[in-house]
Amino acid sequence: MPHWRAILAYDGTPYHGWQVQPGLITVQGTLAEALLALTGETVLPQGSGRTDTGVHALGQVVSFPLNAKIPASNLLFALNRVLPPSIRVLSVAEAAPGFHARHSAVRKTYEYRILPRITALETICPPFLAPYVWASPRALSLDLLNEAAAHVVGTHDFSSFAAVNPDQAHRNASPVLPKENTRTLFASYWVQDPGPEGLLRYRVTGSGFLHHMVRNLVGTFVEAGSERLPASQIPAILAARDRSAAGPTAPARGLFLHEVEY
Amino acid sequence: MPHWRAILAYDGTPYHGWQVQPGLITVQGTLAEALLALTGETVLPQGSGRTDTGVHALGQVVSFPLNAKIPASNLLFALNRVLPPSIRVLSVAEAAPGFHARHSAVRKTYEYRILPRITALETICPPFLAPYVWASPRALSLDLLNEAAAHVVGTHDFSSFAAVNPDQAHRNASPVLPKENTRTLFASYWVQDPGPEGLLRYRVTGSGFLHHMVRNLVGTFVEAGSERLPASQIPAILAARDRSAAGPTAPARGLFLHEVEY
Repeated sequence: MPHWRAILAYDGTPYHGWQVQPGLITVQGTLAEALLALTGETVLPQGSGRTDTGVHALGQVVSFPLNAKIPASNLLFALNRVLPPSIRVLSVAEAAPGFHARHSAVRKTYEYRILPRITALETICPPFLAPYVWASPRALSLDLLNEAAAHVVGTHDFSSFAAVNPDQAHRNASPVLPKENTRTLFASYWVQDPGPEGLLRYRVTGSGFLHHMVRNLVGTFVEAGSERLPASQIPAILAARDRSAAGPTAPARGLFLHEVEY
Repeated sequence: MPHWRAILAYDGTPYHGWQVQPGLITVQGTLAEALLALTGETVLPQGSGRTDTGVHALGQVVSFPLNAKIPASNLLFALNRVLPPSIRVLSVAEAAPGFHARHSAVRKTYEYRILPRITALETICPPFLAPYVWASPRALSLDLLNEAAAHVVGTHDFSSFAAVNPDQAHRNASPVLPKENTRTLFASYWVQDPGPEGLLRYRVTGSGFLHHMVRNLVGTFVEAGSERLPASQIPAILAARDRSAAGPTAPARGLFLHEVEY
């Protein structure tokens, strides 16, 4: 049975996230329905990871088996005919033996987009940009954002930046259960677009990410970028291994799964 | 009682058009609810014209009275706090006596955006662009589009480009009832963005527009731009005063109400 590997871009606005959930419209469920409509086969495509409600993807990687014998270009064409315009298949190819979109992933890159406050009329975010950015209510310093972001490169316990999970809290409090909140970040920096909108983009590449980790990092960096928190405090926030030590969770709509490497 | 004049930008994707309709979410209804929430006053804001379901606005002009005494800058700020991010108030000012957003309008400009087919993989329209363009299934010639568009400048009976309306059909068949499908277009041309996406933008300025008129013009110009119809046929299509003589209706999602002049 051929296994397939596909790259998807999607606008997460109308979806209750990636993962299939009964009675809710999800990206995974919509892709499964498209495959069923095309081939009559019930398969659950595996993604490189979940994306939350409202989170977007520029390069989500998925894998799935199909009994049907279909040339790759026909499958690409047919899927894009059946899927809604908010989900596009960018490429499809037969996967190497043993390939699994989640288990085989080596590195992931996310991008988070902020529309900086540019005038005193802080609330006027262009309506066409609103689903894809966080419109910052405060002025932000690119230098301070980068000073803060540089502190998280490397291998750290990111418990302070993970969504609070009762099971994990119990695990971390235990002297014997392994602590599973250690991740390695290879890159963590901000860039700013030229031009009138001047979008700020946070790019982060890591071995893996905890739930809400990118959004919690961004929420904390914005505290530093707006001078409400010294950027030099980030190492102490990491060391605290306590969610309450870090800043708030940035909104989902600014987050894009950018690329997955294997 | 002060009368107000406001300029709105909105993403038409989530709305059943401008005009208030029972049980449906519309732009006019959403603005009326925001005004009610802010002032306790029930007013129906008047727009420069209706936009259909899925049609966007960059510069819709609205007028409304309010008993409340509110400085303009506070009203702007407060409306944008209450309205959803898909509707933004760009400016608010007290209106001149007698001003009415629809009756006082002198000229309107619309823009229609097409993503041209750039590869053989015609269906891959970026998901973040999909709600705001018509992704053309066919290759288009900018020169032919402009040749076709130039034929409609001036004062014409645009019945061939109006949504079919049984009452109007009766009226036009009558030798005594006045024909009301005459409009004057001051500008009608296409431009193409530089860069990889190369969006085609149709800009049309007129004294007024019939229902579906811009979308029907675009649908017909695309027939000419893809060499399925000689551009030189446009005058004969106008002369026919028959909707079936023209091309199909372009999708709503590519259409933007750009500017209203008074």
